[in-house]
Amino acid sequence: MTLTSPGPTLGVVGGGQLGRMLAEAAAPLGVEVVVSDPTPDAPAAPVARDQVVGDFDDPGTVRELAERADFLTFEIELADPDLLERVSEETGTPVHPDPETLRIIEDKLVQKRRLADAGVPVPEFREVNSAGELRAALDDLGYPAMLKARKGGYDGRGNVPVESPEDVDEAFAEIVDAAQGGSQTDPSGVAMVEEMVDFERELAVMGCLGSERWGEGDEPERDTFPVTETIHREEILRETRSPPEADEDVRERARGVALDVLDVMEGRGVYGIELFQGPDGEILLNEIAPRPHNSGHWTIEGCHTSQFEQHVRAVTGRPLGDTGRRAPTVSANVLGDVDERQAATLSGEDAVFERPRAHLHWYGKREVYRLRKMGHVTLVGESGDRTDRLLADVRELRDGLTFRD
Amino acid sequence: MTLTSPGPTLGVVGGGQLGRMLAEAAAPLGVEVVVSDPTPDAPAAPVARDQVVGDFDDPGTVRELAERADFLTFEIELADPDLLERVSEETGTPVHPDPETLRIIEDKLVQKRRLADAGVPVPEFREVNSAGELRAALDDLGYPAMLKARKGGYDGRGNVPVESPEDVDEAFAEIVDAAQGGSQTDPSGVAMVEEMVDFERELAVMGCLGSERWGEGDEPERDTFPVTETIHREEILRETRSPPEADEDVRERARGVALDVLDVMEGRGVYGIELFQGPDGEILLNEIAPRPHNSGHWTIEGCHTSQFEQHVRAVTGRPLGDTGRRAPTVSANVLGDVDERQAATLSGEDAVFERPRAHLHWYGKREVYRLRKMGHVTLVGESGDRTDRLLADVRELRDGLTFRD
Repeated sequence: MTLTSPGPTLGVVGGGQLGRMLAEAAAPLGVEVVVSDPTPDAPAAPVARDQVVGDFDDPGTVRELAERADFLTFEIELADPDLLERVSEETGTPVHPDPETLRIIEDKLVQKRRLADAGVPVPEFREVNSAGELRAALDDLGYPAMLKARKGGYDGRGNVPVESPEDVDEAFAEIVDAAQGGSQTDPSGVAMVEEMVDFERELAVMGCLGSERWGEGDEPERDTFPVTETIHREEILRETRSPPEADEDVRERARGVALDVLDVMEGRGVYGIELFQGPDGEILLNEIAPRPHNSGHWTIEGCHTSQFEQHVRAVTGRPLGDTGRRAPTVSANVLGDVDERQAATLSGEDAVFERPRAHLHWYGKREVYRLRKMGHVTLVGESGDRTDRLLADVRELRDGLTFRD
Repeated sequence: MTLTSPGPTLGVVGGGQLGRMLAEAAAPLGVEVVVSDPTPDAPAAPVARDQVVGDFDDPGTVRELAERADFLTFEIELADPDLLERVSEETGTPVHPDPETLRIIEDKLVQKRRLADAGVPVPEFREVNSAGELRAALDDLGYPAMLKARKGGYDGRGNVPVESPEDVDEAFAEIVDAAQGGSQTDPSGVAMVEEMVDFERELAVMGCLGSERWGEGDEPERDTFPVTETIHREEILRETRSPPEADEDVRERARGVALDVLDVMEGRGVYGIELFQGPDGEILLNEIAPRPHNSGHWTIEGCHTSQFEQHVRAVTGRPLGDTGRRAPTVSANVLGDVDERQAATLSGEDAVFERPRAHLHWYGKREVYRLRKMGHVTLVGESGDRTDRLLADVRELRDGLTFRD
């Protein structure tokens, strides 16, 4: 390959924080980024070459993006796989990962079936198309269980716990409503239910699929970033730590499951692979995101190559970078702590700037609302540091930040 | 302070690679960058929020930049201190470093005098306003010596070695011509001459001056990055290594001189401080750049905070970041290797992408010419690695890159 100016242009469907951090990582490599997003002046806009304003699934928008780009990718699962495939064929601009992967992943039932068929360990699950089917499934799986919208779930939206038989009707009505905004009366194809895993901890692995050019034989180059522990509250990621407290053999097993997941995925890019570690150290797959993921933000400072640079490398056909960890690293999300939607003004951030080896990442969102992801703080330790100490420190830094007056 | 969106805007006079890397570093901090540069679509443009097209010393351009910015800085010494001062007063937008520093530095004779007066060790030097004065000075200083244009020198341009008395007339005519483009016949104020230092090696220290708010007493916060060895050929920087081969006491002395230099500088920002290490380990100041400097590019991956992030922090009034070195690190400049000015197409770069812990930085310049700085390669070692080995490796990577067909 060669490098020119203007360099290759990467078109990204979605201009949120992931698009922004992709653009930050692309610049040193000489890759220019154009994003599409319905919100004018989206978070990625000030860093990207340009933004095409339009919906994620608007044909004209995606087509304009493809025409301006040498490679197309997406940072949001709301991207439409059929549209991406058609536009890619019409314009000749390749799209990575393959839209087929998006098709598999966007429907959680299809995703789980494909992975289970491939031998990836997953929690027990059932398709449920009515409250009656849900009740029958739970007679088998037992209570409590997690009822999930098959499509469109995100940060806990579209997940409803079912504690006992009395909850079944209400839970099913809620998931149908959540999935369809109440506009549809036929609940077929809307939901699945999954056993509630009594996990010891949650882990995540960023998997990487590169080009066949750099792999062995006809296989794409593959790799994983170091295993990360993810800590959720209200089903929203709050903190990560890497290495996790998990034993070495558990980490190896998690990495093995991630590699098995990558065998099912098609197309270049990084994949956020969320896992449960069960009480006996067994690993079960939770969910997959076919894009950079919140659980990998710590790699920006914590690894020799960040997940964002890795995604840019993979999509543009470059060799994958070194995923090695520089030092134990933790991160904490900065979430909206206000009740009403309002203009975003963060205070307390100078304590983060003052702290050695702490890094504030601000996503540039103009408005804040409760639990909105506004930024994150990463804290890098010294080789050999325990992450429980680092975790306490990064929480203290994060807890000193507020959007309140 | 607080963080908002859009965040504080930093106006940068100059949109070359330094402006580009400033913009890359500013984005995670929520700082937006607008640059001014006479070349449309300058290297910084794709990464910055916007570019104002206009000359560095054009009043309308600088004024527009100031009006759009919360803070003003410069990445090029060609910025006009009087203009910056006037525009800053008129618009109320502070400029850092203080234009007075630019005034001291832009004239090498004034710079050397101020530093010598402050006790900073400098090579012997003389003001010379005619070939006769040059001859008289060299009777005293001895041959060979370095004749320098007082203003406008850059990457060796404006430096003429004088080997013997026979060279004096021609050298003086050349420096007058170089300094004035031959347009002026009065050579007063044009040149100075300096003893040729028989150095063991060249060192550089990036110095940092922050805000009084974060310093002790009324003093600005100050710090230095780790000492770096710089390797020049044809007076253009080729490679850096940090730590240098120099002994610990030499490094300490270099750091001490850098801190003394900072005492003479006024205003927030990073300063590239170039030094000679003499045969007995003594340190002499060579030159100062009041901005991020090529000798500090390795800090992007090699230190916890890069020189670019540090400059953004300092100028926008944030606390300085941790200047600690992550691991031994080397860098090599990617220079134009073609004879004719032409469209830039680099090949051989995949070997850099393949190499673990190697990082290619591409500046996005559309045209290449001989010795033009087009990018750089950084190679990060493991703790305890010797930099001579790393240096050989990064040279090999760099030598594999070419702009030739």
